[in-house]
Amino acid sequence: MLVVGSIVIRVADLRRQVAFWTAALDYVVREPMDDDFALLRSRSGAGPNVSLDAMPSERVLPPRIHLDLYAEDQAGDVARLEALGAEVVPWDGRPDDADYVIMQDPEGNRFCVVDAAGWPGFERHRVVPLV
Amino acid sequence: MLVVGSIVIRVADLRRQVAFWTAALDYVVREPMDDDFALLRSRSGAGPNVSLDAMPSERVLPPRIHLDLYAEDQAGDVARLEALGAEVVPWDGRPDDADYVIMQDPEGNRFCVVDAAGWPGFERHRVVPLV
Repeated sequence: MLVVGSIVIRVADLRRQVAFWTAALDYVVREPMDDDFALLRSRSGAGPNVSLDAMPSERVLPPRIHLDLYAEDQAGDVARLEALGAEVVPWDGRPDDADYVIMQDPEGNRFCVVDAAGWPGFERHRVVPLV
Repeated sequence: MLVVGSIVIRVADLRRQVAFWTAALDYVVREPMDDDFALLRSRSGAGPNVSLDAMPSERVLPPRIHLDLYAEDQAGDVARLEALGAEVVPWDGRPDDADYVIMQDPEGNRFCVVDAAGWPGFERHRVVPLV
Protein backbone atom coordinates (compact mmCIF):
# COMPACT_ATOMS: atom_id res chain seq x y z
CA MET A 1 0.00 0.00 0.00
CA LEU A 2 1.62 3.18 -1.27
CA VAL A 3 -0.44 6.35 -1.52
CA VAL A 4 0.05 9.93 -2.60
CA GLY A 5 0.03 11.26 0.95
CA SER A 6 1.11 14.84 0.48
CA ILE A 7 2.07 17.39 -2.13
CA VAL A 8 5.12 19.26 -0.87
CA ILE A 9 5.59 22.87 -1.97
CA ARG A 10 8.72 24.86 -1.19
CA VAL A 11 7.85 28.33 0.03
CA ALA A 12 9.63 31.59 0.71
CA ASP A 13 7.07 33.04 3.16
CA LEU A 14 5.72 30.16 5.21
CA ARG A 15 3.08 32.11 7.14
CA ARG A 16 1.65 33.66 4.02
CA GLN A 17 1.48 30.38 2.15
CA VAL A 18 -0.08 28.64 5.17
CA ALA A 19 -2.72 31.37 5.26
CA PHE A 20 -3.41 31.10 1.55
CA TRP A 21 -3.56 27.32 1.19
CA THR A 22 -5.53 26.63 4.38
CA ALA A 23 -8.15 29.13 3.27
CA ALA A 24 -8.10 28.06 -0.37
CA LEU A 25 -8.72 24.38 0.37
CA ASP A 26 -10.35 24.56 3.83
CA TYR A 27 -7.33 22.83 5.32
CA VAL A 28 -5.99 23.05 8.86
CA VAL A 29 -2.44 23.06 10.17
CA ARG A 30 -1.23 20.00 12.03
CA GLU A 31 -0.08 21.30 15.40
CA PRO A 32 2.49 21.99 16.59
CA MET A 33 3.73 23.75 13.47
CA ASP A 34 7.47 24.08 13.00
CA ASP A 35 9.10 27.39 12.14
CA ASP A 36 10.16 26.05 8.76
CA PHE A 37 7.55 23.44 7.88
CA ALA A 38 3.79 23.05 7.99
CA LEU A 39 1.66 20.03 7.21
CA LEU A 40 -1.84 20.97 6.12
CA ARG A 41 -4.74 18.53 6.26
CA SER A 42 -8.19 18.72 4.78
CA ARG A 43 -10.71 19.67 7.46
CA SER A 44 -13.31 17.38 5.88
CA GLY A 45 -10.86 14.74 4.75
CA ALA A 46 -11.55 15.50 1.10
CA GLY A 47 -8.06 15.39 -0.26
CA PRO A 48 -4.38 14.63 0.29
CA ASN A 49 -2.20 16.60 2.67
CA VAL A 50 -0.31 19.65 1.45
CA SER A 51 3.10 20.27 3.02
CA LEU A 52 4.78 23.66 2.95
CA ASP A 53 8.54 23.59 3.33
CA ALA A 54 10.41 26.86 3.92
CA MET A 55 13.32 26.14 1.62
CA PRO A 56 14.65 28.15 -1.31
CA SER A 57 13.63 27.07 -4.78
CA GLU A 58 13.54 28.60 -8.19
CA ARG A 59 10.22 29.15 -9.93
CA VAL A 60 10.42 27.81 -13.45
CA LEU A 61 7.75 28.15 -16.11
CA PRO A 62 6.14 26.04 -17.31
CA PRO A 63 6.23 24.03 -14.09
CA ARG A 64 7.09 20.34 -14.28
CA ILE A 65 4.37 19.62 -11.70
CA HIS A 66 1.19 21.54 -10.93
CA LEU A 67 -2.10 20.89 -9.16
CA ASP A 68 -5.51 20.56 -10.70
CA LEU A 69 -8.11 21.72 -8.19
CA TYR A 70 -11.59 20.35 -8.86
CA ALA A 71 -14.30 22.93 -8.17
CA GLU A 72 -18.02 22.48 -7.69
CA ASP A 73 -18.46 26.23 -8.29
CA GLN A 74 -15.64 27.24 -10.58
CA ALA A 75 -16.51 30.93 -10.98
CA GLY A 76 -17.17 31.31 -7.29
CA ASP A 77 -13.93 29.59 -6.34
CA VAL A 78 -11.86 31.64 -8.80
CA ALA A 79 -13.24 34.84 -7.29
CA ARG A 80 -12.69 33.53 -3.78
CA LEU A 81 -9.09 32.57 -4.56
CA GLU A 82 -8.43 36.00 -6.07
CA ALA A 83 -9.65 37.59 -2.86
CA LEU A 84 -7.20 35.38 -0.97
CA GLY A 85 -4.25 36.60 -3.04
CA ALA A 86 -4.17 34.31 -6.07
CA GLU A 87 -4.22 35.65 -9.62
CA VAL A 88 -5.73 34.46 -12.84
CA VAL A 89 -2.98 33.87 -15.41
CA PRO A 90 -3.99 35.34 -18.78
CA TRP A 91 -3.56 32.94 -21.67
CA ASP A 92 -4.10 34.12 -25.23
CA GLY A 93 -4.47 30.62 -26.61
CA ARG A 94 -7.20 29.54 -24.20
CA PRO A 95 -9.81 27.49 -26.06
CA ASP A 96 -13.38 28.71 -25.70
CA ASP A 97 -14.44 25.35 -24.35
CA ALA A 98 -11.62 25.00 -21.80
CA ASP A 99 -13.04 23.67 -18.54
CA TYR A 100 -10.19 25.09 -16.46
CA VAL A 101 -8.85 28.45 -15.38
CA ILE A 102 -5.11 28.88 -14.85
CA MET A 103 -4.20 30.69 -11.64
CA GLN A 104 -1.12 31.20 -9.48
CA ASP A 105 -0.76 31.41 -5.74
CA PRO A 106 0.93 34.33 -3.92
CA GLU A 107 4.37 32.89 -4.72
CA GLY A 108 3.63 32.29 -8.38
CA ASN A 109 2.89 28.57 -8.25
CA ARG A 110 0.60 27.80 -11.14
CA PHE A 111 -2.49 25.64 -10.67
CA CYS A 112 -5.71 24.99 -12.53
CA VAL A 113 -9.25 25.36 -11.24
CA VAL A 114 -11.25 22.73 -13.09
CA ASP A 115 -15.02 22.90 -13.48
CA ALA A 116 -16.16 19.73 -11.75
CA ALA A 117 -19.83 20.65 -11.26
CA GLY A 118 -21.93 17.55 -11.54
CA TRP A 119 -19.04 15.12 -11.81
CA PRO A 120 -19.99 11.66 -10.62
CA GLY A 121 -18.23 10.80 -7.41
CA PHE A 122 -17.57 14.37 -6.41
CA GLU A 123 -20.05 14.29 -3.58
CA ARG A 124 -18.46 11.21 -2.11
CA HIS A 125 -15.19 13.08 -1.95
CA ARG A 126 -16.53 14.92 1.07
CA VAL A 127 -16.11 11.95 3.31
CA VAL A 128 -12.67 10.83 2.26
CA PRO A 129 -10.69 10.03 5.39
CA LEU A 130 -7.15 11.30 5.50
CA VAL A 131 -3.92 9.89 6.82
CA MET B 1 -16.02 22.66 -2.34
CA LEU B 2 -12.58 22.80 -3.90
CA VAL B 3 -10.36 19.72 -3.74
CA VAL B 4 -6.91 18.68 -4.86
CA GLY B 5 -8.20 16.51 -7.66
CA SER B 6 -5.04 15.68 -9.56
CA ILE B 7 -1.31 16.17 -9.56
CA VAL B 8 -0.24 16.98 -13.12
CA ILE B 9 3.24 15.94 -14.23
CA ARG B 10 4.72 16.95 -17.57
CA VAL B 11 6.40 14.01 -19.23
CA ALA B 12 8.69 13.37 -22.19
CA ASP B 13 7.80 9.70 -22.71
CA LEU B 14 4.10 9.30 -21.96
CA ARG B 15 3.92 5.51 -22.32
CA ARG B 16 6.87 4.96 -20.05
CA GLN B 17 5.59 7.29 -17.36
CA VAL B 18 2.10 5.74 -17.58
CA ALA B 19 3.68 2.34 -17.06
CA PHE B 20 5.76 3.51 -14.13
CA TRP B 21 3.12 5.49 -12.23
CA THR B 22 0.27 3.04 -12.72
CA ALA B 23 2.45 0.23 -11.36
CA ALA B 24 3.99 2.36 -8.61
CA LEU B 25 0.66 3.47 -7.15
CA ASP B 26 -1.67 0.71 -8.38
CA TYR B 27 -3.47 3.24 -10.57
CA VAL B 28 -5.38 2.66 -13.80
CA VAL B 29 -5.67 4.76 -16.94
CA ARG B 30 -8.98 6.44 -17.62
CA GLU B 31 -9.99 5.24 -21.06
CA PRO B 32 -9.85 6.33 -23.78
CA MET B 33 -6.33 7.65 -23.30
CA ASP B 34 -5.18 10.49 -25.52
CA ASP B 35 -1.90 10.38 -27.41
CA ASP B 36 -0.57 13.26 -25.37
CA PHE B 37 -2.36 13.01 -22.04
CA ALA B 38 -3.31 10.34 -19.53
CA LEU B 39 -5.40 10.62 -16.41
CA LEU B 40 -4.51 7.97 -13.84
CA ARG B 41 -6.89 6.98 -11.05
CA SER B 42 -6.33 4.92 -7.95
CA ARG B 43 -7.72 1.43 -8.44
CA SER B 44 -8.83 1.32 -4.82
CA GLY B 45 -9.72 4.99 -4.58
CA ALA B 46 -6.92 5.60 -2.09
CA GLY B 47 -5.57 8.85 -3.42
CA PRO B 48 -5.92 11.76 -5.82
CA ASN B 49 -5.64 11.40 -9.57
CA VAL B 50 -2.28 11.75 -11.29
CA SER B 51 -2.30 13.33 -14.74
CA LEU B 52 0.54 12.87 -17.20
CA ASP B 53 0.84 15.58 -19.83
CA ALA B 54 3.18 15.04 -22.77
CA MET B 55 4.58 18.56 -22.87
CA PRO B 56 8.18 19.75 -22.69
CA SER B 57 9.45 20.99 -19.36
CA GLU B 58 12.78 21.55 -17.75
CA ARG B 59 13.80 19.51 -14.73
CA VAL B 60 15.10 21.83 -12.04
CA LEU B 61 16.64 20.75 -8.75
CA PRO B 62 15.57 21.14 -6.06
CA PRO B 63 12.01 20.89 -7.35
CA ARG B 64 9.51 23.51 -6.24
CA ILE B 65 6.89 20.76 -5.86
CA HIS B 66 7.33 17.07 -5.11
CA LEU B 67 5.19 14.21 -3.86
CA ASP B 68 5.43 12.46 -0.53
CA LEU B 69 4.28 8.87 -0.95
CA TYR B 70 3.15 7.24 2.28
CA ALA B 71 4.21 3.60 2.51
CA GLU B 72 3.00 0.86 4.79
CA ASP B 73 6.12 -1.16 3.90
CA GLN B 74 8.79 1.40 3.12
CA ALA B 75 11.67 -0.97 2.40
CA GLY B 76 9.47 -3.20 0.31
CA ASP B 77 8.09 -0.30 -1.68
CA VAL B 78 11.51 1.23 -2.29
CA ALA B 79 12.73 -2.09 -3.70
CA ARG B 80 9.56 -2.48 -5.76
CA LEU B 81 9.92 1.04 -7.19
CA GLU B 82 13.56 0.40 -8.07
CA ALA B 83 12.50 -2.66 -10.01
CA LEU B 84 10.00 -0.48 -11.88
CA GLY B 85 12.70 1.97 -12.96
CA ALA B 86 12.96 4.47 -10.11
CA GLU B 87 16.24 5.23 -8.36
CA VAL B 88 17.19 6.05 -4.82
CA VAL B 89 18.83 9.48 -4.70
CA PRO B 90 21.94 9.37 -2.50
CA TRP B 91 22.07 12.13 0.07
CA ASP B 92 25.16 12.61 2.21
CA GLY B 93 23.38 14.70 4.80
CA ARG B 94 20.59 12.21 5.46
CA PRO B 95 19.84 12.08 9.20
CA ASP B 96 19.98 8.63 10.76
CA ASP B 97 16.41 9.01 11.98
CA ALA B 98 14.97 10.23 8.68
CA ASP B 99 11.65 8.51 8.05
CA TYR B 100 11.81 9.02 4.29
CA VAL B 101 13.84 7.85 1.32
CA ILE B 102 14.39 10.22 -1.60
CA MET B 103 13.82 8.65 -5.00
CA GLN B 104 13.29 9.77 -8.57
CA ASP B 105 11.08 8.39 -11.30
CA PRO B 106 12.37 7.39 -14.77
CA GLU B 107 12.33 11.04 -15.88
CA GLY B 108 14.13 12.32 -12.81
CA ASN B 109 11.14 13.61 -10.85
CA ARG B 110 12.08 13.48 -7.19
CA PHE B 111 9.67 12.11 -4.62
CA CYS B 112 9.89 10.79 -1.08
CA VAL B 113 8.80 7.41 0.22
CA VAL B 114 7.71 8.04 3.79
CA ASP B 115 7.51 5.29 6.40
CA ALA B 116 3.85 5.35 7.36
CA ALA B 117 3.65 1.94 9.02
CA GLY B 118 1.16 2.06 11.85
CA TRP B 119 -0.04 5.57 11.17
CA PRO B 120 -3.56 6.15 12.44
CA GLY B 121 -5.99 6.55 9.60
CA PHE B 122 -3.83 4.78 7.07
CA GLU B 123 -6.07 1.76 6.90
CA ARG B 124 -9.10 3.90 6.21
CA HIS B 125 -7.31 5.32 3.23
CA ARG B 126 -8.06 2.11 1.39
CA VAL B 127 -11.67 3.01 0.90
CA VAL B 128 -11.28 6.60 -0.20
CA PRO B 129 -13.57 7.19 -3.16
CA LEU B 130 -12.17 9.16 -6.01
CA VAL B 131 -13.57 11.76 -8.33
